[in-house]
Amino acid sequence: MSAFDDLLAYDQTTQALGQVAGRLGWDQETMMPRGAAAQRGEEMAAMESVLHARRTDPKVGDWLAAIDAGALAAVDAAKLREIKRSYDRASKVPGDLAAQIARVTSNAQGKWAEAREADDYAAFAPVLAEVIALKREEGAALANGGDIYDAMLEDYEPGTTGADLEAMFGALRPALTELRAAILDKPAPAGVAGRFDEAAQLKLSTLLAETFGYDLTHGRIDKAVHPFSSGSGSDVRITTRTNPEDPFNCFYSTIHEVGHACYEQNIDDAYLLSPLGRGVSMGVHESQSRIYENQLGRSRAFTRWLYGQMRDAFGDFGIADEQAFYAAVNRVSNGYIRTEADEVQYNLHVLLRFDLERALMSGDLTVGDLEAAWNDRFEADFGYAVDKPSNGVLQDVHWSVGLFGYFPTYSLGNVYAGCLHEALRGAVPDLDAQLAQGDTSSATGWLQDNLQVHGSLYEPREVIEKASGRVPGPEPLLAYLTGKFSGIYGL
Amino acid sequence: MSAFDDLLAYDQTTQALGQVAGRLGWDQETMMPRGAAAQRGEEMAAMESVLHARRTDPKVGDWLAAIDAGALAAVDAAKLREIKRSYDRASKVPGDLAAQIARVTSNAQGKWAEAREADDYAAFAPVLAEVIALKREEGAALANGGDIYDAMLEDYEPGTTGADLEAMFGALRPALTELRAAILDKPAPAGVAGRFDEAAQLKLSTLLAETFGYDLTHGRIDKAVHPFSSGSGSDVRITTRTNPEDPFNCFYSTIHEVGHACYEQNIDDAYLLSPLGRGVSMGVHESQSRIYENQLGRSRAFTRWLYGQMRDAFGDFGIADEQAFYAAVNRVSNGYIRTEADEVQYNLHVLLRFDLERALMSGDLTVGDLEAAWNDRFEADFGYAVDKPSNGVLQDVHWSVGLFGYFPTYSLGNVYAGCLHEALRGAVPDLDAQLAQGDTSSATGWLQDNLQVHGSLYEPREVIEKASGRVPGPEPLLAYLTGKFSGIYGL
Repeated sequence: MSAFDDLLAYDQTTQALGQVAGRLGWDQETMMPRGAAAQRGEEMAAMESVLHARRTDPKVGDWLAAIDAGALAAVDAAKLREIKRSYDRASKVPGDLAAQIARVTSNAQGKWAEAREADDYAAFAPVLAEVIALKREEGAALANGGDIYDAMLEDYEPGTTGADLEAMFGALRPALTELRAAILDKPAPAGVAGRFDEAAQLKLSTLLAETFGYDLTHGRIDKAVHPFSSGSGSDVRITTRTNPEDPFNCFYSTIHEVGHACYEQNIDDAYLLSPLGRGVSMGVHESQSRIYENQLGRSRAFTRWLYGQMRDAFGDFGIADEQAFYAAVNRVSNGYIRTEADEVQYNLHVLLRFDLERALMSGDLTVGDLEAAWNDRFEADFGYAVDKPSNGVLQDVHWSVGLFGYFPTYSLGNVYAGCLHEALRGAVPDLDAQLAQGDTSSATGWLQDNLQVHGSLYEPREVIEKASGRVPGPEPLLAYLTGKFSGIYGL
Repeated sequence: MSAFDDLLAYDQTTQALGQVAGRLGWDQETMMPRGAAAQRGEEMAAMESVLHARRTDPKVGDWLAAIDAGALAAVDAAKLREIKRSYDRASKVPGDLAAQIARVTSNAQGKWAEAREADDYAAFAPVLAEVIALKREEGAALANGGDIYDAMLEDYEPGTTGADLEAMFGALRPALTELRAAILDKPAPAGVAGRFDEAAQLKLSTLLAETFGYDLTHGRIDKAVHPFSSGSGSDVRITTRTNPEDPFNCFYSTIHEVGHACYEQNIDDAYLLSPLGRGVSMGVHESQSRIYENQLGRSRAFTRWLYGQMRDAFGDFGIADEQAFYAAVNRVSNGYIRTEADEVQYNLHVLLRFDLERALMSGDLTVGDLEAAWNDRFEADFGYAVDKPSNGVLQDVHWSVGLFGYFPTYSLGNVYAGCLHEALRGAVPDLDAQLAQGDTSSATGWLQDNLQVHGSLYEPREVIEKASGRVPGPEPLLAYLTGKFSGIYGL
């Protein structure tokens, strides 16, 4: 066996163990008895220690040093690239620092939940300061003299820098605040009314999952507090949730997670448990969930089909016709919470976080000034004041657990989805006729063939560019949003 | 930190990983999508390779050599004993042999299933011969010049030899064949009639689990093809199954698994994820499942309470009164299948397997002669001929997956349960009055305090002797069975 073969065999076991750790996380959110949390913490820590030891094993370094990268074919070179990235990343962070971050963020998450409950930012600030200090130390170790925030982005979106994002997002903020204001000047469309039976919601949710190509012989759907997708290869599970008064919460959560899950299910089987057998980045992942959910699932054509399904399942629910249903699905209204935001306002919530967390990492913003900075920025973009911290700076879990560099991948995913959607429309001219019949196969098939099948073969921006035929940029997303919402609201 | 502290800390991670592997097994039988089997095989193999490497890590040997065992307190000495046993066992078997056994048995299980389906022993014989050759090689490595079968027993019932079992079981066979014959001379009692709603069965099954003390905040109940209990400490899950025509299948499967699960749940919290935090042997485990299921669950007193519950749940099901219900629950009838056998005949099925597998391991019996030996022995004990291999030598999965030395622990558990039940009756004189009210708390509390709480602190026979106050032997079980069934059948 060559060093490369040895490395791949070793890595396959590591990949399999990573899948096991992911399954434990799924179990924790869906099946675990509530009294098992402390023991589960020990089990997760044991898995993490095994994974960390394998990722930083000196054997891996020896193999990497012995391999002649120039002699490898393209697929093997991509595998080597991914393994090397993981090894370099894991080896740069001292074990003590990694362990301390794990401990501090575990505690900080609890403190954050308490502070949010009490609407008391001051109670959270000291522990957030501790998290940020440790993450900056980690970032400095990773950056090796370079930009700390850029080093953190590498964990979620390899090859993209803060400056790239700033440029890509630069056009979004003014255009979206303007579009938002124009929409909110118009009368709000009616929403759905009544109560929607949970079993009927879950039944239609499963139909939607299958309609978008989710393979239930290699997955399953369960209920959880927060919808998520979990796993790669032949075992990719999703969760959803129900709200008796808002069936769209269930349906669009499902379609969103199906986008993530289909990306994982549709990767080339040859890459199973190899470094290429997973989605390549958070941004590309989010592009799939968002294009399934929004550009396809919230389109005029698809909502026509969904309207019929909902009438069959629930009878009359206060929406008179297809056009009114389309407007209800795409309703824009004021709100403080990112996760509840519509397509127009969602990215404004994310851009706010991106700018603030980048300033926190550079040191330009302190934890003491964060709440005021959040509130000022929110009022500037949305036109009204944050009423309490749980509707503002305390609303998201991310920073408490040390996720810096993660937020912008949400908007990057939307930008990527815009590019892909533009290309898809060109490739499938009669897409709307199909969607109106509840047939997504041309759309999802195009995404599978042009993007999903590649897994981590190409770098994130590379695979978006190959699939969409253009350098990723915000223009298609803005054109799509402006066109869609001008139509709905008569702008 | 001392060598002992280091060893314990290392072992705790290994224990936690063992729990993770167990959870994967649970998932496979309950939740896993059917298309995920191949990937799951890789994931399980990865976990096993990690566990094997940890169990045989030279560090463990160094720590073991550095520890002054004589200086340890009793609990620590017991921890050391368990870790040393695991290390010695794992270190004696060459890695190549262990891997080959894993491969061959994985294939053999499939061949066994096919052969059973086709009722073709000859198709299975060659692969069974291969399994046996490898297991004998492993046994020889473990036995180090001693008896191969005894070495295998150590995996399931440390401290018990084949000769011990032969002596302990010696009295069972003639007494049970005689009791069986006397019972079958009498008219068979009526069974239940009708169809029993699945949801109602599962509801009563859950009530039964709680009635026997199963803690659902640290466990859960799901359906599976084969009932089992899985996990230790604060996450101990069970499965059950339903048959629309036979509600006892569900109810007594549940009580049986609750016996296993309560043993794990009731171990001293201080032993969590330590080598003492699990049931000490298969035989002691089975003593708990069997005493819950039979001596308690199938008692005249408890079936009185259950009869009322079933009347409430299902109305009239063809059983006129409590005494007839008690007889129906304890019905003895002819049958080929071990897992469907009643209390009287069950051990005859096991003793047959014990004698045959011991002869296979010693070389006194060949694979070519096994089917005839099975059929001869069956007819001698049961009085009628085996009609087909799936009702005979091909009925159990155990040998195909290399489990030799496992079968006798079923009967050993029954013998132990007999001893414990005798002592329990002495300790709780009004037990029947409590059971007739559906109150098992004195019985399960006594078992918890005298046996379950200790986990693996004491050796198997030691803990049975401490709890029951007698050297384990078959007399109490025989006296119990003779008394009970003489009463039911008027012998």
